[in-house]
Amino acid sequence: MATLIFGIHAIEQALKNPSEVVVVWMQKDSSNKRLLKLQKIIEQQPTISLELVASSQLDTMCSEKHQGVVAQLEAADFKTEKQLKEDVGNWQSPLILVLDGLEDPRNLGACLRSAAAAGVDAVVISKNKSAPITATTHKTAAGAVAHLAIYQVSNIARCLETLKAAGVWVYGTECSEQSSSIYSQDLSGSVALIMGNEGTGLRHLVKQKCDYLVHIPMQAGWDSLNVSVATGVVLFEAVRQRISVKV
Amino acid sequence: MATLIFGIHAIEQALKNPSEVVVVWMQKDSSNKRLLKLQKIIEQQPTISLELVASSQLDTMCSEKHQGVVAQLEAADFKTEKQLKEDVGNWQSPLILVLDGLEDPRNLGACLRSAAAAGVDAVVISKNKSAPITATTHKTAAGAVAHLAIYQVSNIARCLETLKAAGVWVYGTECSEQSSSIYSQDLSGSVALIMGNEGTGLRHLVKQKCDYLVHIPMQAGWDSLNVSVATGVVLFEAVRQRISVKV
Repeated sequence: MATLIFGIHAIEQALKNPSEVVVVWMQKDSSNKRLLKLQKIIEQQPTISLELVASSQLDTMCSEKHQGVVAQLEAADFKTEKQLKEDVGNWQSPLILVLDGLEDPRNLGACLRSAAAAGVDAVVISKNKSAPITATTHKTAAGAVAHLAIYQVSNIARCLETLKAAGVWVYGTECSEQSSSIYSQDLSGSVALIMGNEGTGLRHLVKQKCDYLVHIPMQAGWDSLNVSVATGVVLFEAVRQRISVKV
Repeated sequence: MATLIFGIHAIEQALKNPSEVVVVWMQKDSSNKRLLKLQKIIEQQPTISLELVASSQLDTMCSEKHQGVVAQLEAADFKTEKQLKEDVGNWQSPLILVLDGLEDPRNLGACLRSAAAAGVDAVVISKNKSAPITATTHKTAAGAVAHLAIYQVSNIARCLETLKAAGVWVYGTECSEQSSSIYSQDLSGSVALIMGNEGTGLRHLVKQKCDYLVHIPMQAGWDSLNVSVATGVVLFEAVRQRISVKV
């Protein structure tokens, strides 16, 4: 399964791993300096096929604003639950993001971008309940998909058991009376942060497996954020604590 | 200028200020419990006109997933630069979000939702360079537009001068060598956080007016987040510091 990505920034990011880019279609006769710079970079990559085409051809490949460039990637190579079990033992104080059932490809993309920028060790997504990784996801993820270790698992609750057995503390995010402020938690050790579905939040079975339930403190009358914003806030709170610990 | 909003959650939030909701069109013969509950609430509001219609009629009013309900709001009542000048003197350690030229209505909506949840005193948006507040913005904002004090100004740089003259420290967000980590700053006092355009960031003239340039520390190879995620991270870092100061 190959994946199309589009947009100058997304493709600049993807080119950091040039072996994963198979073909680039670029608008011919463009005077856009960023596009011309991108073209030079691609021409220096012997393994990438570059095709200069009419902008209208790009329109047929991609329904969104492509900025004059579309690329085909090798399929994202997801890891398995078995590999997670092996890998987690080798990580020192890992930071793991678990996305359980996000439905919107754009939210998923923004979460993956934040995860890469936060330097997580792994992202775990559910196999059947998540949005597929579409061209929109890749665009929003700005190249993050190729840089992340993404584990696709069929059973999130069982996967949390695996993480706990390896000494990882599991934090479910939920605004409820049982949950405590994210700012009162020590997130500098081995931590997995679990984000639920946009509308329905964490599933009951998943919640039961969490060591702690946490929330982002909000103004009275508000109990949720866009899920990609909430993911960014909790990830970078972990980053902040980890920086403080190092200093 | 009236505004249409759609989606159950967005309309539940908007109904917290029932006087701002003029008409609600709702799918007839629905068995959705949340929709029926919403119908009862609306029926108790004497000033709101409720119309039960075929789902297909809602489709023609709104190109996105409306969940069986669309509402017309009074136009968002933006405040002016002159009012900001008057108001800022009355605030104790205000937290102000300045959005300079966001282009995507969905990003704008997510930023407004985060601003409301973070309890900001004001949001400042540029009159000419910003995305308009569309139905998509309202949906993503989950009702925040009606709850926020939004100031629409024609000249952001001049507005920052106004804020500085009132004792507000102005922080521009930018990933550059000149900028320092957001986590090294004291954001517990009078603070305005400035977010730039999705692609091009802060404009030169705006940057010159900032007291500090700050960034969110990221993994090597990454220098930006989705703008609504970045806005959430810096806003809630200010919230975290303000909670700590109070404790």
